[in-house]
Amino acid sequence: MDEILVSHHRRPALRSPLIIEGLPGVGNVGKLAAEHLVDELGAEKFLTMHSKFLPPQVLVDDTGILRLVSNDMFFLKRKGSAADLVFLVGDYQGITPEGQYELAHRSLELLRKYRPARIYTLGGYGVGRIIEKPRVLGAATHPELVEEMKKHNVIFSKGEPGSGIIGASGLLLGLAMRLGIPGVCLMGETSGYFVDPKSARMVLEVLTAILGVKMNYTALEQKAQHIEKLTAQFKEAEKAIADSRAEDLRYIG
Amino acid sequence: MDEILVSHHRRPALRSPLIIEGLPGVGNVGKLAAEHLVDELGAEKFLTMHSKFLPPQVLVDDTGILRLVSNDMFFLKRKGSAADLVFLVGDYQGITPEGQYELAHRSLELLRKYRPARIYTLGGYGVGRIIEKPRVLGAATHPELVEEMKKHNVIFSKGEPGSGIIGASGLLLGLAMRLGIPGVCLMGETSGYFVDPKSARMVLEVLTAILGVKMNYTALEQKAQHIEKLTAQFKEAEKAIADSRAEDLRYIG
Amino acid sequence: MDEILVSHHRRPALRSPLIIEGLPGVGNVGKLAAEHLVDELGAEKFLTMHSKFLPPQVLVDDTGILRLVSNDMFFLKRKGSAADLVFLVGDYQGITPEGQYELAHRSLELLRKYRPARIYTLGGYGVGRIIEKPRVLGAATHPELVEEMKKHNVIFSKGEPGSGIIGASGLLLGLAMRLGIPGVCLMGETSGYFVDPKSARMVLEVLTAILGVKMNYTALEQKAQHIEKLTAQFKEAEKAIADSRAEDLRYIG
Amino acid sequence: MDEILVSHHRRPALRSPLIIEGLPGVGNVGKLAAEHLVDELGAEKFLTMHSKFLPPQVLVDDTGILRLVSNDMFFLKRKGSAADLVFLVGDYQGITPEGQYELAHRSLELLRKYRPARIYTLGGYGVGRIIEKPRVLGAATHPELVEEMKKHNVIFSKGEPGSGIIGASGLLLGLAMRLGIPGVCLMGETSGYFVDPKSARMVLEVLTAILGVKMNYTALEQKAQHIEKLTAQFKEAEKAIADSRAEDLRYIG
Repeated sequence: MDEILVSHHRRPALRSPLIIEGLPGVGNVGKLAAEHLVDELGAEKFLTMHSKFLPPQVLVDDTGILRLVSNDMFFLKRKGSAADLVFLVGDYQGITPEGQYELAHRSLELLRKYRPARIYTLGGYGVGRIIEKPRVLGAATHPELVEEMKKHNVIFSKGEPGSGIIGASGLLLGLAMRLGIPGVCLMGETSGYFVDPKSARMVLEVLTAILGVKMNYTALEQKAQHIEKLTAQFKEAEKAIADSRAEDLRYIG
Repeated sequence: MDEILVSHHRRPALRSPLIIEGLPGVGNVGKLAAEHLVDELGAEKFLTMHSKFLPPQVLVDDTGILRLVSNDMFFLKRKGSAADLVFLVGDYQGITPEGQYELAHRSLELLRKYRPARIYTLGGYGVGRIIEKPRVLGAATHPELVEEMKKHNVIFSKGEPGSGIIGASGLLLGLAMRLGIPGVCLMGETSGYFVDPKSARMVLEVLTAILGVKMNYTALEQKAQHIEKLTAQFKEAEKAIADSRAEDLRYIG
Repeated sequence: MDEILVSHHRRPALRSPLIIEGLPGVGNVGKLAAEHLVDELGAEKFLTMHSKFLPPQVLVDDTGILRLVSNDMFFLKRKGSAADLVFLVGDYQGITPEGQYELAHRSLELLRKYRPARIYTLGGYGVGRIIEKPRVLGAATHPELVEEMKKHNVIFSKGEPGSGIIGASGLLLGLAMRLGIPGVCLMGETSGYFVDPKSARMVLEVLTAILGVKMNYTALEQKAQHIEKLTAQFKEAEKAIADSRAEDLRYIG
Repeated sequence: MDEILVSHHRRPALRSPLIIEGLPGVGNVGKLAAEHLVDELGAEKFLTMHSKFLPPQVLVDDTGILRLVSNDMFFLKRKGSAADLVFLVGDYQGITPEGQYELAHRSLELLRKYRPARIYTLGGYGVGRIIEKPRVLGAATHPELVEEMKKHNVIFSKGEPGSGIIGASGLLLGLAMRLGIPGVCLMGETSGYFVDPKSARMVLEVLTAILGVKMNYTALEQKAQHIEKLTAQFKEAEKAIADSRAEDLRYIG
C-alpha cells in the first residue's frame, strides 16, 4: 500500500495561507490550541491522511461509528487582506522517527502548492513541575521572525529548550527551511503531566494577536477535560491489551 | 522478496460474499470463533499469505512436518439466497504497525474482486476481570448497521471501547470504509487473561443468528484448551530463547 | 544501498548439492557444528553477503585487521556419487524479523540455481537445564524425510519443539517448501545457557552418518571455547556501550 | 521522501583527500576530536545530509534560530604535497542498524568521486573505568597500515576491542574495503561515562603527527564542557518528554 493515503474532500483555492499545526504532544498543548481554533473559527476539513506510520487503530464515536486514525487539514478563507488559514491537526504523530519524517514531508508537499506565507507550529514545553503562569517560548527559522515574535511577548531564552524540539512541531519547520518557507514554533510551558488548557490559552493569546482574530475561550477547559478523559481511557485499554498480548508481539528471533 | 507472498490453492467463484475475520488477539476470542466456524461449516482453504510482517517461524505438527506461519483464507459456497462466506484466519497478526497495515490492505485487495457485501471482524474486548456473562459489543462503519446489530442484541455503549479498536479487527474495517465496503466489529467481553471459549460462544451466537446457520458448540471448549496449551508452549519456548539470545539481538549502535 | 550486498569470490559448478546451514542461535549448536564441518572437510568460501539486516559492526582479528560482519557460503566438491556440499554460515542471523526473511529468501535465491537436492538446517533446542546425553530432535518438510531421519536416530516427538522453530533454521525450510526443495532441521538438545560442543557433536554424528563422511571431533571442544570467549567479550563490550549510549539511541518522539 | 536529503553548499575540487570521521559515540571522543580539527584548521562546510535515519529533531541556537539535525562534510585544501582533508561530522549517528548502513554507504558514495586516499575514523574505546593515561588503539583494513600506525604509537592489542567496532567508525571502514579504499580506526581509551577531552587529545596527537599539522589544544577542554552540557540537557528533556508520552508511542497491537 502507499505509505500515506491522501483523501481530498475539497480542493480549496487559497492565497499564500498561514499554516497552523497542532498535533498531540507534551501536555497536548498544540493539539488543544489548534483544534480550539478550528472549532471556534469554523474551519472546514478538506484533506485526510491515513498512514501505516500511524497506529493500526480505529476510534469509535458515541454512536458506535468507527473511523481510522488520521492527520487532517482544515482551511479558513478570510476576507480582505487577512491571510487564509490552513490547520494541520490529528489523532497521533508518526509513531517512528521515519514516520515522523515521512508525514511531515508529505504534509509540506501537499501544502507547498498553496505557496504558504508562513508556518506556525504549536506545542508544549515540558518542565516537569506545575506552572502558575506559563510563558510562551519561541524558536524560528529566521532572525527577523525572532524580532517580530518578541513584540508579541514570545520568550526567546538561551538554553531553552535545551534539547531543541523533538517531533512534528520542530520537524515541519526544519524541513520547511529547506523549501524556503519561514516559520515559528510557539511552545507553551507545561508540567507535561496532564492535558493543559491554561498553557494552550497562553499560546492562543499570542497567536490570535498575530492573526488578528478574536477568540472565546469558554469551550477550551471543557475540550481539555474531554481529551484528558480520552487519554486516560486510551492508557487503560492499552495497558490491558499490552499485558495480555505482550508475549505474542515480542520478537524472539 | 515480496513483502507478502500469496499462494492461491483454488480460485473459487464467489458472489458478493460476507467476509469473516478472526485473528489472534485479546483472549483469542476472534481466532477461536472464526476457526470454529471454519471447522464446523467445512470451509475450504483457497489462499495462503506468508509475509515478512509475520514472525520468522515455522510450526511443527504432531508428525514432525513443519509449515511456515501464515494468514489464510477459506471459503464456503452456500445454496439459494444465502450469501457465500469467506474466512480470514491465521497464526499471527502483523508484528509491527506497518505490518498490520500492509496485511490488512493486501487482504482487502485480494478480497475486493469478489465484491464483498459486508465484513464481520471478530475480537475480544479486554476488561481486566472475570466476566460471568460476556456481552457482545459492536462498532460499525454505517449508522444503519448499528441499528441492524442492535436487533441481534449487540451492545453499543458510549465510551466502550474507550480507546477504539487496535489491530486487524479495527484496521480492516477502517480501510474497508475507504473502499466503500460496509462492516461490523463484534467484540466479546473477556478478562484478557486466557483463551476464552465462553466469550467466543457469545460472539458466535450473535453471528450465526445473523448468518442463518446452526452451530454445534461441543468442540469449542476443546479447541480453546488446545490453543491455550499452544500459547503456553509458545511463551515458555520464547522465554527460553529470549533469555539465551537477548544480548545477541540487542542493538547497541 | 542494496539491502543485501553479495560478493562472489568464485562461481563453482555444483551438481544438485546438499545445503547445510548453521548460523548463531541457541547454544550456538548449529554454528559450531556447521563451522566444524567447513574446517574439517576443507570447504572453500565462494560467496559473502553483507547486509543492513546484520549489525553495523566490524570484527577485528588478532593482527588488527577488520572485516564487516557477514553471512558466507562455502562449497565442497565430492568424488563419484557423493553429493557436493554447500555450507551457509556467518556471524549473525538477521537482527529483525524482516531481516530474517530477506536473508533467508536471498540465500535460497542464490542457491536455487544449483538445484539443491536437500537442505539440512542445524540448530539447538533449548530446554533450560543441563542435559547429560543430548537427543537430536527433527522436523522435516515431507513425511518420507521423517521416516528416513528416524533410521538415523533422529527423534520426532509430539509437542517438541512446542513453539515450532524460530529463526533461520526454520525459515529457510519454510521458504524452501514454497520452492519445492525438501529439507530437514536437526536440533541438538542444549541448556541454552552456553556454547554447547556436546550437543553440536550429537548433531554432527547424525549428519555425518547421513552424508557418509568421517569426522574428527578433537578441535570441536576448542572451537567452542573460542566462541564462548568471543561471546563473553561481545556481551561485555555491548553492555559498556549500551550503558553509555542508551539515551542517545532512545527514540523519544 | 528520499531517505537521505543531500544539500551541496559548495562543490570543492579535491585531490585524493584523506577522510576524517568523528561522529557522536562512546565518550564522544571521535566527535570531539574531529570537530576540534574542523575548528582549529578552519575547514569549510560543503555538504549537509538530513535523513529519516536521524532523530526527528531540530536544535535551537542561542539566538532562537533552529536547524534540523544533520551529518555534515567540511573540506580543507592544503598547499604543496600535503593531502587535502575532508571531515565527516554531525549531531547523531543513524538511530537504527539500517540507518547506520544507509548513512555510511551514502557518505562513501558522496566521497568516492574524490578518489579518497585513505579514511581515518575516530572513536572511543569504552573500558568502564577511569583511565589516567589513555592509550590509542587501532584497527585497519590492510596489514601495511597496521605497521605504519605502530610507528605512530598506535596500539594493536590482541583481543582489544574484543567485540570489534560497532557503529559508524567501523562500518565506514568495512564498507570502504568493498570499494578498495584503505582506512584506519583510531580509538581513544575512555571510561564511557562522560565526554572525554583527554582521550580526544590522545587521538589527536596521533592523528596530527600523521597529517603533519600543528594543533593548539586550549579550546578542547571548553568544547568538551559544552558538549557535556548539551548532552545533559538532552537527557533531561528526553526524560521529561519520554515520561509524558511513553504510552502514546508504545505500540500495543
